[in-house]
Amino acid sequence: MPRYKLTIEYDGGPFVGWQRQENGQSVQQALEEAIAGFCGETVRVHGAGRTDAGVHALGQVAHVDLGREAETDTVRDAINHHLKPHPIAVLATERVPEGFEARFSAIKREYLYRILDRRAPPTSRRGQVWHVGVPLDAKAMHEAAQALVGQHDFTTFRAAECQAQSPVKTLHEIAVTRKDDEVHLTVSARSFLHHQVRSIAGSLKKVGEGRWPLERIAEILAAADRSACGPVAPPEGLYLVAVDYPPEAETL
Amino acid sequence: MPRYKLTIEYDGGPFVGWQRQENGQSVQQALEEAIAGFCGETVRVHGAGRTDAGVHALGQVAHVDLGREAETDTVRDAINHHLKPHPIAVLATERVPEGFEARFSAIKREYLYRILDRRAPPTSRRGQVWHVGVPLDAKAMHEAAQALVGQHDFTTFRAAECQAQSPVKTLHEIAVTRKDDEVHLTVSARSFLHHQVRSIAGSLKKVGEGRWPLERIAEILAAADRSACGPVAPPEGLYLVAVDYPPEAETL
Repeated sequence: MPRYKLTIEYDGGPFVGWQRQENGQSVQQALEEAIAGFCGETVRVHGAGRTDAGVHALGQVAHVDLGREAETDTVRDAINHHLKPHPIAVLATERVPEGFEARFSAIKREYLYRILDRRAPPTSRRGQVWHVGVPLDAKAMHEAAQALVGQHDFTTFRAAECQAQSPVKTLHEIAVTRKDDEVHLTVSARSFLHHQVRSIAGSLKKVGEGRWPLERIAEILAAADRSACGPVAPPEGLYLVAVDYPPEAETL
Repeated sequence: MPRYKLTIEYDGGPFVGWQRQENGQSVQQALEEAIAGFCGETVRVHGAGRTDAGVHALGQVAHVDLGREAETDTVRDAINHHLKPHPIAVLATERVPEGFEARFSAIKREYLYRILDRRAPPTSRRGQVWHVGVPLDAKAMHEAAQALVGQHDFTTFRAAECQAQSPVKTLHEIAVTRKDDEVHLTVSARSFLHHQVRSIAGSLKKVGEGRWPLERIAEILAAADRSACGPVAPPEGLYLVAVDYPPEAETL
């Protein structure tokens, strides 16, 4: 059975998250139903990252096995046609080897957290940013965040319900920048703990407001204590931007 | 009565347009009701540009006279509080002289037209861009558009229902650029005819697709004939970005 890699964008607002759940519509379910709609097959779509309810994606990756070969552009257009009216779009479709696993072959995941940093609430960006009405010091947030780069025990930034075997993760890069009226946090790692990025965003916001000194981020990391974490930032500001794979995993 | 200048952002999607109308909720009405809600006065809000149904604003300007002096930040926050749940936000409030007229004192208006130029439909940007599924040549569009700069009879790009006395307008600047998966048209002038920017966007799209040669834009302008215009681009891609005033109009 030919395996396809899908690159997917979605507005997470209306969904219970990526993963199929009893309590509502998931992105995974919508995709599986759209594929069934065009090829008549019951398929399983395997995603690289299990985004939470309300979390968005600009470049989620998934793989799916189809019963027969088809032009990649045809597969993309047909899935998009059947996805209507869901705010989910397949940006690209590629044929990949049978060994390609969207989740397990990934070597890097990149997330973006968008904060709307102004007094006035969002209008067009409602549901797409975290609105923080006080001025944030993005430089201080960036500097404080550098303490998180490298391999650490991230227990402080890990949700109680996290199912990862170990709290030790390696952050490749983390940056906080100002873009007009938004403050952007970008962070990349091979993989993340549950709520890790939102826990980091909520803690860095404390630094940005001037309520926490810069050093506090290094201190709460070293504490390896969930209760030391700042409030978890809301899901609507979070985007799964990209998932990277080694060339050999994708080459047919 | 102290006069205030309001800088306003809105998602035009749910509104019949800026101006009060019998057939539905307008941005103007929502603002007037919000102001009445916080100061108990029935006021008239005068906008710089009468955006159509579905057209957005990043920096619409309006003026309003209030019964008493108040801190500008307090006015802004109070209006925003009473605007909920409308996707309208007052970004800034300033005291201006009594002679300041949002519409008539303006010396420059800037519009942005956003085209999502990719095969896959929009997700988070639904209602905020015009989706064009074929690749556009932004450079060709930019080059063709330069024929519109300066003073011309814009009859070709003018809606039948336009109420302006003259079809002659002066475009200061027009530019087409690519920004990731979007093509952006920016255009500025002292004032515009009804549907002028959307008529230009629809005609330039023909050039971008390669269906019209570059010279066609200069030709249809010279024709001064509405039937020579390309299809009018839909409202959801259009944004009123900014309105400029001479310093003397704003200085108390």
